[in-house]
Amino acid sequence: MKIRKITLNENEIPEKWYNIVADMPNKPLPPLNPATREPIGPEALAPLFPMELIMQEVSAEKWVEIPDQVRDIYAMWRPTPLYRAYGLEKALDTPAKIYYKYEGVSPSGSHKPNTAVAQAYYNKQEGVKRITTETGAGQWGSALSFACNLFGIECEVYMVKISYEQKPYRKVMMNTWGAKVFASPSTNTEAGRKILAEHPGSTGSLGIAISEAIERAATRDDTKYSLGSVLNHVKLHQTIIGQEALKQMEKAGDLPDIVIAPFGGGSNFAGLAFPFLRLNFEEGKNIRCIASEPTSCPKLTRGVFRYDFGDTVGMTPLLPMYTLGHNFVPAPIHAGGLRYHGAGVIVSQLLKDKLIEACSHDNLEVFEAGVLFAKAEGIIPAPEATHGIATAIHEAKKCKEEGVSKTILFNLCGHGNFDMKAYEDYFAGKIVRHEVTEEEIKKSLAELETPEIG
Amino acid sequence: MKIRKITLNENEIPEKWYNIVADMPNKPLPPLNPATREPIGPEALAPLFPMELIMQEVSAEKWVEIPDQVRDIYAMWRPTPLYRAYGLEKALDTPAKIYYKYEGVSPSGSHKPNTAVAQAYYNKQEGVKRITTETGAGQWGSALSFACNLFGIECEVYMVKISYEQKPYRKVMMNTWGAKVFASPSTNTEAGRKILAEHPGSTGSLGIAISEAIERAATRDDTKYSLGSVLNHVKLHQTIIGQEALKQMEKAGDLPDIVIAPFGGGSNFAGLAFPFLRLNFEEGKNIRCIASEPTSCPKLTRGVFRYDFGDTVGMTPLLPMYTLGHNFVPAPIHAGGLRYHGAGVIVSQLLKDKLIEACSHDNLEVFEAGVLFAKAEGIIPAPEATHGIATAIHEAKKCKEEGVSKTILFNLCGHGNFDMKAYEDYFAGKIVRHEVTEEEIKKSLAELETPEIG
Repeated sequence: MKIRKITLNENEIPEKWYNIVADMPNKPLPPLNPATREPIGPEALAPLFPMELIMQEVSAEKWVEIPDQVRDIYAMWRPTPLYRAYGLEKALDTPAKIYYKYEGVSPSGSHKPNTAVAQAYYNKQEGVKRITTETGAGQWGSALSFACNLFGIECEVYMVKISYEQKPYRKVMMNTWGAKVFASPSTNTEAGRKILAEHPGSTGSLGIAISEAIERAATRDDTKYSLGSVLNHVKLHQTIIGQEALKQMEKAGDLPDIVIAPFGGGSNFAGLAFPFLRLNFEEGKNIRCIASEPTSCPKLTRGVFRYDFGDTVGMTPLLPMYTLGHNFVPAPIHAGGLRYHGAGVIVSQLLKDKLIEACSHDNLEVFEAGVLFAKAEGIIPAPEATHGIATAIHEAKKCKEEGVSKTILFNLCGHGNFDMKAYEDYFAGKIVRHEVTEEEIKKSLAELETPEIG
Repeated sequence: MKIRKITLNENEIPEKWYNIVADMPNKPLPPLNPATREPIGPEALAPLFPMELIMQEVSAEKWVEIPDQVRDIYAMWRPTPLYRAYGLEKALDTPAKIYYKYEGVSPSGSHKPNTAVAQAYYNKQEGVKRITTETGAGQWGSALSFACNLFGIECEVYMVKISYEQKPYRKVMMNTWGAKVFASPSTNTEAGRKILAEHPGSTGSLGIAISEAIERAATRDDTKYSLGSVLNHVKLHQTIIGQEALKQMEKAGDLPDIVIAPFGGGSNFAGLAFPFLRLNFEEGKNIRCIASEPTSCPKLTRGVFRYDFGDTVGMTPLLPMYTLGHNFVPAPIHAGGLRYHGAGVIVSQLLKDKLIEACSHDNLEVFEAGVLFAKAEGIIPAPEATHGIATAIHEAKKCKEEGVSKTILFNLCGHGNFDMKAYEDYFAGKIVRHEVTEEEIKKSLAELETPEIG
């Protein structure tokens, strides 16, 4: 019997997170104060994050020890399995060897708890009583609710109102873990009340929800704020994925030529790819790492590298990143987790330095890939995850055309159990191709008043 | 670090299913022809099932080899993890040691694919082109759709119309794996057309859906029928669960005093419990095996042991079982998989012989247990699974009262990702206690015209 699933034991959960900053030839540029355009220091983040996370955010130490209590909780679902995709290989009739790391076995169904648990832990250590966050479709809000419950921290989630109404089941999931979920804009905050006064029928946006969550944290001593992607410490925590995958590939007696992950803010991609990039840095390996984004939100493939705000309303420091402009509004694709205007700082620098690659896929192509995968491998993927599958299929087909066998590894970051409406739309022919025009991007970028990067 | 999760490698997937019939002191009584009241032979089942499954249905061989191809597919999600429930133990402050086997990691989210894959395999071996089945809430239909897709068999699912309309996402899941799903009553069958002519607004029932699925199979040479519980061969396939659990308990250096599983038709319970009952038979162990049913469908705790039909409309042979009468209509609880009037033949005989125990829990109690479990262990359980949790909690509390430490193992048969509406109802106070009255049971049993068992 050929082995499909490469597993690790609980005591093989990695003991350290990998901080790629230590190995980067060009270090990330500093965030800037929007008013003074001067670099900001760690202290500026103190109202929002516990000090240990701020230290991780600016750290250049190569390895960061994972606290025992975090590893103990990771053991609820980690190590996650790594699969050899025999079914997909056969369906594609490709000489390529395809592997995928499956993060959908976590209680909330994606890779997000990897950082949610770590963030809740450090907040608990510093006596934080309440954490606020925003969520769109609900994947991140679910993960943080799960994590806060385990540490007895109150969790307050601002969920974009349209999603709150359209996807009630994610809300129930968060409630089950004890979180309070508010439709945003809400009457809990100045920001929310202001929007509601001006637009009583507002269906909300991620930008508004971020403003509400930040306001609640900034105005209360016992409350901090938490983010599910983009930031350096979030990427750091996710490297548990790639480190496990590295051990599992070794067990399989193989090493990937190509590593692929979906790209929203960067933590999914960083999680799988950074530990393999380490081999490029340390051992001169030449592993191609490809970030896979939707054509409807193409910041890596069609955006520019410059300073921009992390949020829509401009409350964050200015960050050096590939961006479509913070006012860019992506089409309402089902892969809600990839609808973000910018790329995290570290990934942006790596792309600028040509140490990683990026590609994009159309909405229709990714669902075709998702259904093919579900039939071949059994698991129905989340819409975000289908982007990684589409890239893997693209590379596997290229192998067939060229008559070469490459080893491909991708991150299957979550299951689609809460996304069946998306598949229903696909089968009903309601998923359409969507390409952003040059004009849209130019218009959005023209609104930026922030410094360019030389 | 204490070990939470006891895992096995892919090559530790058991090679044989365990057939408890070989060890039973009193063998199951034969099914009877409803017209003649004479025992029926295997040939009577040939229009509906492939011969290999019929042979398994009547087999008294102790071990049945699992085909390589089935084990290879099992490896997509098996071996499933066995957890030590440290979180639950702490929440209950109990001296008991609690373990659970988690079957929710399968692609369709429950233990059902264990038999769906085996059934699809044997049908494929015998050249069957199409399998029909019925489904209520959709858990069984999903599992069979998943399995048929892997073998290139067409799958036709008759889904009770009210569920078809209320739970569209299970249908989309089945479609994703290529199955055809029809709201039952449908116009595909005589049975369906007859019902629709008489009751154009019929919302369907499991009884009608079974009739439709059986009719489609019985009237086409290339089509067979498949059932997800009750029958002996279904129970046989599920013993993979308990055999893995046995190895895992050994790895943990422990052996359960009490084994618990939810009870609908019996395959969930049989799957976990039978391999432990083997130790009682072979080694004189005294492991208590408890089947956990809802108070709203109490066939084991309040039904009678006699011959009855397996379906509502009386198309099956008469089976010797604990039953509430085939006309009994359970309250519409969310644990749809436990809403069945009778118990499988083997389990019924074991209960009659006092070799296993049964208990029941109220609808409200099981949701309290489910939410407690979700908070303590992270996984949100399916409504069916909460019954096993409730029994485990009951036994763990008894340990605390009596100041003894027992080892408890239960089957967490599935996740609740498709059941969040049930939790929403619970949080909204819409879940109410439900007790069946003596009159209801008497009335239902009075309608039986079938032979009693002495």
